[in-house]
Amino acid sequence: MILSGNEIKKNLGKDIIIKPYVEKQLNPNSYNLKLHKQLLVYENNLLDMKKENKTKNLIIPPEGLVLEPGKLYLGRTKEYTETNNYIPTLEGRSSIGRLGLSIHISSPYGNVGFKGYWTLEIACIQPIRIYEDIDICQIYYHTIQGDYQNYSSSKYQNNIGVQGSLLYRDFIEE
Amino acid sequence: MILSGNEIKKNLGKDIIIKPYVEKQLNPNSYNLKLHKQLLVYENNLLDMKKENKTKNLIIPPEGLVLEPGKLYLGRTKEYTETNNYIPTLEGRSSIGRLGLSIHISSPYGNVGFKGYWTLEIACIQPIRIYEDIDICQIYYHTIQGDYQNYSSSKYQNNIGVQGSLLYRDFIEE
Amino acid sequence: MILSGNEIKKNLGKDIIIKPYVEKQLNPNSYNLKLHKQLLVYENNLLDMKKENKTKNLIIPPEGLVLEPGKLYLGRTKEYTETNNYIPTLEGRSSIGRLGLSIHISSPYGNVGFKGYWTLEIACIQPIRIYEDIDICQIYYHTIQGDYQNYSSSKYQNNIGVQGSLLYRDFIEE
Repeated sequence: MILSGNEIKKNLGKDIIIKPYVEKQLNPNSYNLKLHKQLLVYENNLLDMKKENKTKNLIIPPEGLVLEPGKLYLGRTKEYTETNNYIPTLEGRSSIGRLGLSIHISSPYGNVGFKGYWTLEIACIQPIRIYEDIDICQIYYHTIQGDYQNYSSSKYQNNIGVQGSLLYRDFIEE
Repeated sequence: MILSGNEIKKNLGKDIIIKPYVEKQLNPNSYNLKLHKQLLVYENNLLDMKKENKTKNLIIPPEGLVLEPGKLYLGRTKEYTETNNYIPTLEGRSSIGRLGLSIHISSPYGNVGFKGYWTLEIACIQPIRIYEDIDICQIYYHTIQGDYQNYSSSKYQNNIGVQGSLLYRDFIEE
Repeated sequence: MILSGNEIKKNLGKDIIIKPYVEKQLNPNSYNLKLHKQLLVYENNLLDMKKENKTKNLIIPPEGLVLEPGKLYLGRTKEYTETNNYIPTLEGRSSIGRLGLSIHISSPYGNVGFKGYWTLEIACIQPIRIYEDIDICQIYYHTIQGDYQNYSSSKYQNNIGVQGSLLYRDFIEE
């Protein structure tokens, strides 16, 4: 079961926190989130799962920024969210997908209890000029069956700003 | 909760409309939809979120059409669908994904109340010859929690044919 | 409704089989699956939906393997799974997506009753060195509404090893 827009609204300030919340971003069964102007790109073209791949900052200027195919851009939502008691999921919008712009790389699925900004995994099929503040994606909420333990990973909980992958820690822990 | 194939069938002609409906396209928990022969590509390689990006038509001939990587092809399902009371979602099929062909760009998620043909966001990893009428994707249905307002966007409701992105309207409205 | 991690655990050995099962791969609302070292690539760059596209084997050596953009790599999970009474779904992990690595091509959605290893559709945005045994994706479970018939396709049920696309059979059957 997925929450309707009206049900999302009823849960605001309780199980669901979205800051800032603007009524017109509410959809029949999701809520639109906006693109922050900060992006992150990897310094090296060749990445390595085992290494801390260094990143550098990019800022989307008011006149927009042209993204190039073959390059991954990490971004984030302007909105801070917290979700208790439901499983938050993040997908693109049809209007964004129709321009060949992905906002995640096969990883839309969140964790109950996640608090923070959502990191976006942005890539394009054709070059495209993008702008900050655009409604870039939508969040929606699954109900959960069974008792659960909230997300408490030391990786991405309570993140601030855009975060690169911390996958290399998986190798260190083992 | 997601509807089983049998449950989809029970709802046909009521909350769920799929035209045409062919029994053998029904799966254990989804229904396969077919690729229409009309495609749309953008005239310019460089796209711009703020502009109306002009498109041109392509037709898939009987001998098939080779799609090239680095190019976005908008297509549509042959089937017209209407969904009330459930949230329709569109994903690729395993047999299609195993050929590196995507049918959406991180945007599988539909709206309760949507009526129309489904626009497909088609891109490939390696060049691939495709054919019309192939079972290209599958639709499935989530139950919804809470009262809701049906989708009534002026953008894509009751669309006919393949539609490019109307994202530029978001900038005009503001 | 989606099963919590605790609920997945309760169902192990009954409706849900995951072999091997390792407690620390359990998440709040999913379970991580690992990458097997066997990969498959297509022999020809140009694919054809109607043909049996020949494949060849690749093995990920201990020092890792660099994947190149513009090439599809089929892999599989180390784990064998069986799912009854729920709909299994496979998505990437955030840590993997943040490196621009996809584990499916718009086809995360499974079938109730599926038994076997999960074929992964691996592609990258930037070149990336990958390693076997890494937690590459996560499986989660939707509840199902209505009676259903288990998946029994002759295509991918009870598969062993990595399997290329059997889409060409769709043309033969017609």
